[in-house]
Amino acid sequence: MKRTLILNVTVMGLGMHPGAWRYRSGKPYDFLKLDYFLEIARIAEAGTLHAIFLADTLTVGEENFERPSLGAMDPTIVLAGIAAATRSIGLVATSSTTYNEPFNIARRFAALDHLTGGRAGWNVVTTFVPDVSANFGSAVHLDHSRRYGRAEEFVEVVRALWRTWDEAAVVGDKKAGVFADASRVRAINHQGEHFSVRGPLTLPRSPQGWPVVFQAGSSERGRELAARQAEVVFTAQNTLDAAQAFYTDVRRRALAHGREPDGVKILPGLLPILGGTEAEARERKAELDELSGHEPELRKLAARVGVAVEDLELDAPLPLNLIRANAGFNASHGFRDAAVQLAESENLTVRELLYRNGGGHRQVVGTPEQVADLIETWFSEGAADGFNLMIDVFPDGLSDFVDHVVPLLRRKGIFRDDYTGDTLRSNLGLPLPDGH
Amino acid sequence: MKRTLILNVTVMGLGMHPGAWRYRSGKPYDFLKLDYFLEIARIAEAGTLHAIFLADTLTVGEENFERPSLGAMDPTIVLAGIAAATRSIGLVATSSTTYNEPFNIARRFAALDHLTGGRAGWNVVTTFVPDVSANFGSAVHLDHSRRYGRAEEFVEVVRALWRTWDEAAVVGDKKAGVFADASRVRAINHQGEHFSVRGPLTLPRSPQGWPVVFQAGSSERGRELAARQAEVVFTAQNTLDAAQAFYTDVRRRALAHGREPDGVKILPGLLPILGGTEAEARERKAELDELSGHEPELRKLAARVGVAVEDLELDAPLPLNLIRANAGFNASHGFRDAAVQLAESENLTVRELLYRNGGGHRQVVGTPEQVADLIETWFSEGAADGFNLMIDVFPDGLSDFVDHVVPLLRRKGIFRDDYTGDTLRSNLGLPLPDGH
Repeated sequence: MKRTLILNVTVMGLGMHPGAWRYRSGKPYDFLKLDYFLEIARIAEAGTLHAIFLADTLTVGEENFERPSLGAMDPTIVLAGIAAATRSIGLVATSSTTYNEPFNIARRFAALDHLTGGRAGWNVVTTFVPDVSANFGSAVHLDHSRRYGRAEEFVEVVRALWRTWDEAAVVGDKKAGVFADASRVRAINHQGEHFSVRGPLTLPRSPQGWPVVFQAGSSERGRELAARQAEVVFTAQNTLDAAQAFYTDVRRRALAHGREPDGVKILPGLLPILGGTEAEARERKAELDELSGHEPELRKLAARVGVAVEDLELDAPLPLNLIRANAGFNASHGFRDAAVQLAESENLTVRELLYRNGGGHRQVVGTPEQVADLIETWFSEGAADGFNLMIDVFPDGLSDFVDHVVPLLRRKGIFRDDYTGDTLRSNLGLPLPDGH
Repeated sequence: MKRTLILNVTVMGLGMHPGAWRYRSGKPYDFLKLDYFLEIARIAEAGTLHAIFLADTLTVGEENFERPSLGAMDPTIVLAGIAAATRSIGLVATSSTTYNEPFNIARRFAALDHLTGGRAGWNVVTTFVPDVSANFGSAVHLDHSRRYGRAEEFVEVVRALWRTWDEAAVVGDKKAGVFADASRVRAINHQGEHFSVRGPLTLPRSPQGWPVVFQAGSSERGRELAARQAEVVFTAQNTLDAAQAFYTDVRRRALAHGREPDGVKILPGLLPILGGTEAEARERKAELDELSGHEPELRKLAARVGVAVEDLELDAPLPLNLIRANAGFNASHGFRDAAVQLAESENLTVRELLYRNGGGHRQVVGTPEQVADLIETWFSEGAADGFNLMIDVFPDGLSDFVDHVVPLLRRKGIFRDDYTGDTLRSNLGLPLPDGH
């Protein structure tokens, strides 16, 4: 089968750019309304994008008062809300392994997979924001290693629960009065370091066998988790070199775990800021930057690299010594490394780095052609199987992409014209899980 | 304001009668499909019912293999799935306080309230099924008293989180660049016996102020929880006398806690089995009973009253001495008491009790007139503010009720012709929460 590009759209707040809420014509409350998400879903499905991807935020910080909050709404609730109004697009929600129970997560995503006829995905994350633990009664925030130990066991338990009902377990013979064959439904009797869970799940096997497992997190432990358990990996990569190295590394690890490397799709984030000309795109970006100011992004960058805001000077480089000296760093390693790498590789000042999305997901400011070319390069040169699109402003940043970039990608022969399968898994070109 | 009848519909599996899945014309898998729930929602909304009510089951027992399972799907996911296809009907989901975290529950229901424009309700329960604890790594199943201690604190925390954003906290001034007023958003800094939660919630105040709080559980502790914290109480009552006593008691307790008794709506369950004539209704019931056999219900009755199945003889009365001697009883007191009361008051054999829905929710087998008369009597004689309808077979048991019973209730002047408010709370005739 010909390899084709994967494109998901990430929905956060009213757009990824902190100035989005002031720039767009809609209301500041829109991110709380079903109609807002339905419009995005319709545009994304018209563009035959693979999935809508929702992040999750479990705490409130200063930035929540500065703009509509990025992951405020419970993502599984929003995705279920979209289900009835869509037919083909995948629905992927982030849920943390740090502050949930595996049985609840397994059941919630299996239910979403049933309700959507096989369009559900679960994005596995660990929660690194220390403030969150205060909302869950944990005196101590889990350190990086323990967080990942819990995550690995969590995913194992969830996947085991998803398989507790054999395909053939539901007989459904109304005449004979046989609903299910109990011998084809099993407990898992899991006893591990973090969890003890008996099972089985309350639900028959879901349409995809199980929901597609996404993973976000690019540290050493994150890559291992991805290589062993994920079907799609979401990563932050700023340069072609770094993306190629990551792509090669994760596929190599998957192979080492006895997996077919093509069974792990790798999707960097991509933040396009579009204009009919490059100048128009830069103008859009400048207007958005003007509306947000640089303070919120400066705070975010400081947290991302693990230093105090005061340690960042706008017209100086990143304080690399300070960053490397922070032995107790306990946030996302992937995001920190992406920012440092970008700053170092191009010798950027803090101000320049802020302009480049603070070293977060790769940003491209330009014409549809420029964006399509970048996508093609990364896709064909071993850096990505596709992208998680970060949209600057909803909904028009998305409709611009669908109207102007998607046709170019189709013309290049790397993006399909329509959904090719009935489930998210088949649309992603992933192999069916065992037993299917 | 004139007092009007409240009618919700409870959706469990393919119908409350265990024979439903064989009796109906649909497929045994329907309870996993969005279309099934959408059809029910459309019928219920056409009948101007107040809310769709979903129970929750966190384990798999023998009965799950005998028929489509009663609460298999995650209820909040199903309700969010219905949201886009409905406009006015309330959406009430059960979530256990025993195996969840208050922060997650507060956030999930606030999100549902936002997405539905103010139609969400949370039914608070404690989980009494010991098997469930094995799915959540708890070596010891919480006893009745500790379960309720946790529940009381859980509801307090959730309600406090729902109030962390003042109505006026979201300023939304795009021009000035002021999204929210941080001084109107507060942490709760809760430190209690079971939980420590800082807050605030990730979401602005929801359209109803907060989702409507339902409570199910009729033991001493359950009644106290209801009287202090619930806006709607769901209860199992088999006789007019018992229902009146419960109604009076809960209202008295609410008053003792300084609440307006009319701020607590009391809804017994009601299981109508309808026919054009009484004989037709009895025939429908006989066919359903024939399809299910009495074994599943016998097991359920044994668990309900806390004895072994072998202790129940079909043609003898309930073994009341055994039931009363079970000091370690740790299931639902409300259901046990309802069954015992019905059996004693009419001197029923076990077989007769099984025929009467096993002493669970009040069952009435008869014509629309007979069902409407019973509803009117309970409503006007101080036994109920309305009912949670338990439908024998979906969807036709519900459409029969909407087509034939609802018009009679309207003619009696006790049920309204249309939704009167924009939110579930206003449709229920409940006072607005403070600050509205």
